[in-house]
Amino acid sequence: MQPKSIPLEQINIQDLFWSKHIDLVKNVIIPYQWEAMNDLIEDAESSHCIENFKIAAKEAEGAFYGAVFQDTDVAKWLEAVGFSLATHKDEALEKMADRVIETIGKAQCEDGYLNTYFTLKAPEDRWTDLCEGHELYTAGHMMEAAVAYYKGTGKKRFLEIVMKFADLICETFGSEAGKIHGYPGHQEVEIGLIKLYEVTGNQRYLEMAKYFIDTRGVGENYFLKEMARPGYQYIFPEFKDYDPRYSQSHLPVREQETAEGHAVRAVYMYCAMADLAKYCKDESLYKACMKLWDNIVTKRMYITGGIGSSGILERFTTDYDLPNEYNYSESCASIGLALFGLRMAQMTKDATFIDVVERALYNTVLAGIALDGKSFFYVNPLEVWPEACIHRTSKEHVKPIRQKWFGVACCPPNIARTLASLGQYIYTVEERTLFVQLFISNDTCIPLENENIQVQLTTCFPQNNSYTLHIAKPNAPIKVALRVPDYAETYKVMVNGEEAPYAVEKGYAYILIDAESEINVSFLAPARWIYANPSVRADVGKVALQRGPLVYCLEEKDNGDNLSSLYVDTTKAIEEMPSANWKGIVELKVSGKRVETESWDKAKLYSTHKPKMVDTTLQAIPYPYWNNRGVGEMLVWMKTFN
Amino acid sequence: MQPKSIPLEQINIQDLFWSKHIDLVKNVIIPYQWEAMNDLIEDAESSHCIENFKIAAKEAEGAFYGAVFQDTDVAKWLEAVGFSLATHKDEALEKMADRVIETIGKAQCEDGYLNTYFTLKAPEDRWTDLCEGHELYTAGHMMEAAVAYYKGTGKKRFLEIVMKFADLICETFGSEAGKIHGYPGHQEVEIGLIKLYEVTGNQRYLEMAKYFIDTRGVGENYFLKEMARPGYQYIFPEFKDYDPRYSQSHLPVREQETAEGHAVRAVYMYCAMADLAKYCKDESLYKACMKLWDNIVTKRMYITGGIGSSGILERFTTDYDLPNEYNYSESCASIGLALFGLRMAQMTKDATFIDVVERALYNTVLAGIALDGKSFFYVNPLEVWPEACIHRTSKEHVKPIRQKWFGVACCPPNIARTLASLGQYIYTVEERTLFVQLFISNDTCIPLENENIQVQLTTCFPQNNSYTLHIAKPNAPIKVALRVPDYAETYKVMVNGEEAPYAVEKGYAYILIDAESEINVSFLAPARWIYANPSVRADVGKVALQRGPLVYCLEEKDNGDNLSSLYVDTTKAIEEMPSANWKGIVELKVSGKRVETESWDKAKLYSTHKPKMVDTTLQAIPYPYWNNRGVGEMLVWMKTFN
Repeated sequence: MQPKSIPLEQINIQDLFWSKHIDLVKNVIIPYQWEAMNDLIEDAESSHCIENFKIAAKEAEGAFYGAVFQDTDVAKWLEAVGFSLATHKDEALEKMADRVIETIGKAQCEDGYLNTYFTLKAPEDRWTDLCEGHELYTAGHMMEAAVAYYKGTGKKRFLEIVMKFADLICETFGSEAGKIHGYPGHQEVEIGLIKLYEVTGNQRYLEMAKYFIDTRGVGENYFLKEMARPGYQYIFPEFKDYDPRYSQSHLPVREQETAEGHAVRAVYMYCAMADLAKYCKDESLYKACMKLWDNIVTKRMYITGGIGSSGILERFTTDYDLPNEYNYSESCASIGLALFGLRMAQMTKDATFIDVVERALYNTVLAGIALDGKSFFYVNPLEVWPEACIHRTSKEHVKPIRQKWFGVACCPPNIARTLASLGQYIYTVEERTLFVQLFISNDTCIPLENENIQVQLTTCFPQNNSYTLHIAKPNAPIKVALRVPDYAETYKVMVNGEEAPYAVEKGYAYILIDAESEINVSFLAPARWIYANPSVRADVGKVALQRGPLVYCLEEKDNGDNLSSLYVDTTKAIEEMPSANWKGIVELKVSGKRVETESWDKAKLYSTHKPKMVDTTLQAIPYPYWNNRGVGEMLVWMKTFN
Repeated sequence: MQPKSIPLEQINIQDLFWSKHIDLVKNVIIPYQWEAMNDLIEDAESSHCIENFKIAAKEAEGAFYGAVFQDTDVAKWLEAVGFSLATHKDEALEKMADRVIETIGKAQCEDGYLNTYFTLKAPEDRWTDLCEGHELYTAGHMMEAAVAYYKGTGKKRFLEIVMKFADLICETFGSEAGKIHGYPGHQEVEIGLIKLYEVTGNQRYLEMAKYFIDTRGVGENYFLKEMARPGYQYIFPEFKDYDPRYSQSHLPVREQETAEGHAVRAVYMYCAMADLAKYCKDESLYKACMKLWDNIVTKRMYITGGIGSSGILERFTTDYDLPNEYNYSESCASIGLALFGLRMAQMTKDATFIDVVERALYNTVLAGIALDGKSFFYVNPLEVWPEACIHRTSKEHVKPIRQKWFGVACCPPNIARTLASLGQYIYTVEERTLFVQLFISNDTCIPLENENIQVQLTTCFPQNNSYTLHIAKPNAPIKVALRVPDYAETYKVMVNGEEAPYAVEKGYAYILIDAESEINVSFLAPARWIYANPSVRADVGKVALQRGPLVYCLEEKDNGDNLSSLYVDTTKAIEEMPSANWKGIVELKVSGKRVETESWDKAKLYSTHKPKMVDTTLQAIPYPYWNNRGVGEMLVWMKTFN
């Protein structure tokens, strides 16, 4: 039995911290996204994606509109709907989704091909532009959506549609003569195919995914060959002068040792590599995953779990290059990082992977969506000065306010599906071991070897650093592996009122249970000053505040403007206090100094006159909650003079 | 009599600091640029600009190649040649230039129109795309070149060619019915027309310049109207979604209070505004110039005299937004700032304008060219980490090494003409007052009212802070206005061996001379710590080193890598010492600390463990000399803990 997550329909999350975000999915985001996909939202960028399917299905007349990957908006919506229906039945929503799926079925070509852009706009160009066409990427999202919808509803129609498409892909691509020896320009179909294999057991899909991964970056670059074709037309002007690193096709995947190129493409590929390492017991893929993971988390990741520091082409750059005010750190990339980390954690049974997963989920992913669920961040800087984020300049990509919707709308539905599927991160089971990964209140039926067992986790985490795990009586002893998070300064486990001994292995405290048990876990995890490796040039002389998994930030609202002029005194205590803004949230107060701007002679931009410093108190809020109280400056890494 | 510079042919510069740079113009840059224009340099971007003229002149066959403004490379070369011939006769060079001018004459259309792009590629599109076509910009550079060549050689042929073109422009543009009511997309023709007016006295050219300035930004934006035309084709894809601020056409020029948009366009326009304010005694233009100058120098200028902080579209951004590691600060923009400042200084007789001119010339302009004259910077960052300046990322525009040549080759010839015309900045004369602006050794015939007078300035500035001015006996008393630079901590004037009293007005120490005089000026100007206005977020908690006009920087070569990890101790003395690298140059040594990277646990990117600090000594070199000893990190603004 492979280590795996719990099926979502068996997990009921009711959590002080997360439920308010998760509930947004069914109450706000799914309906809102439905309106966006049908162009019913004023002042938002046009989507047209439902209409594209209707036109392809001959239910409507008109022309295709949108990006080559416009279909994925529908796919991601259906995936979120699938996840949501798994835990919250909703007949009206299911009916709506079924209708869309019927349209998708009609939009599918005779031979299984499914893509409204090419079907409507350029049927003869099918598979001729793997680099830019996004057909396989779109296919992958369709597969993921169909699997989620099948799991959430038990209905097979959508699954059948994508299997027919997957079969066509298997017939079209491969090493055999007559097949296309290419691979996707944007990885994603590999994940989709593997999920299809997981629900159908059809080995062919796994092998297709393996072919794409094995072939990538081997020999002459496939995309450069495509582009060298006479008359090749670029879909994306920015793809001229193409760098194969961008799509991780610069080297065979097993030879890649640093995370390169477009961050979302990268982590989606690493997820597929991790899955294949597991299912195919492929040691070389496993080693490559370990190296790439290590490169990201020790050299190329923000403290918030953001990755991809270049504002141009959403790319990784180089080791320790983590600028705070003009980075990209796309929400989708952190989602991909969490997915990769979960796979690595399950494969290795090493909780340190979950430390990173938790970092990404609690900070960058959550920052991507407003507390009301109606606006989103694509880009997640760690330092924002709104006045300097100007149209058509070097910081245009940095938005000081969440956006309603996007022409390329990957992040909002991706955040939605992540919130709707948060349950997958909480537990892993393998045979008779239950791994407790995240501290989120839930009531769950755990499928162990030979039995199901009911478990309740109750907590006010991250407000309080403790939780109770109630486990029903098992038929035979079970092992419970309790994650010891990297921020825990102490760690105490009580079983049925008595302190229990435990052995820690790779970040898990292992205990054995053979009766109904109430496990109380508590640890000290006070707010702390965090330093970055001094090779991170952007953070030298600075500290960040972290409490549990939450990274904190300063906002102009609490601290006045010019946050760069503030210094914190790390020798003074960090005061924790309940937030006056948000229930169940801890805010932090620290002592420091402010470089005084008022007394500076404004006629002089430069002067030998040293600016004055005055004492001040600084107030910090959790990073994911920034920009929920209007536009203003924000800063994570604070200067310190000690 | 208007205040004015000395004709270049009357100034002979022989200066310890500058001559090695100036001599590059005739010995290296002019010959090198000639080769570049004729595509004789291996591995450099193709120019084809001479060939374009030959084709238009029917001396060769072929098609136009290059940018719409490719002709300006030839113009800027001829301008530099003109300046160079003014002070250094060179028959072979003059013959070469004469031949090019003959070709230009043949390439000119019957009616005076001169532009090989439109003549060869799209004759029917003449004047239809003022925003992007650069015809008036190119015309302006031709005019400037012709004036310089006429002044340098006394030959009129080139001047006649551009006057014929200027006449056509005067017939084509204006408020009268039937004329085009537009203005240039890139300002420059205004300066050219004014220079043409200065040498010909033809009022019509001055009025044409005034029309362009007066019309700009008034009423409906001309460029947006052009772009709204059915079938409009963009020459530059990045001009889609055009922002009139980019070309300073968002408001009538007299209503502009902040420096906006493309920095080179802006300062070229301000130069023309200053000229028109002077010649037309236009108080409203003068006031606008003062406001715009003030906005630049108190809020939008780097300590190096760099301007235009956005790496995208080479733009000004907003007050105090002066990032150090991803800025643009084009060399050409600082040249324009120096030209603007010179005009303002002459108009106001205020030496503080020269403080800025000197800052730009000694730092950014000089940094633009390698010490061997063979490579150039377009972009002038204040902090460089070469490994992070990666192809196709947010810092791609930052080059850690000077480039051989550019497709858009504005900076190299612009630096060449600036060095070749450096004499114009040294003195201003008005009636019987001689203003001494820059401290550069020279032997000059000064045209005062009613007489010419021989003057020698001898100095080892900026190595030593003193100079001697020898003035031949005048027929009547003359006033000498000696600039008191903003960095002078004391100021002493000796005349013929005796300390002389002086009155300071607007940054000038005035003395009266009525006999042959040897004036010795000396001032204390030790290396100093400079702070930025704390509103400059990028520089809070940092200091820069400046000695005289030279800003200093740290290089990896002297200080190891990770310059961001260095702190300076501002309470310790700054040690001045002769450079072991460059003759006549002072280097600086300061005490500080280094955040230790070696002892950091590299498995952790973030940690509660505070990095260690160790004592160190830092060595700084003048900013303009950076990147002359190989590729490495560079940093101007240093952290300080006190």
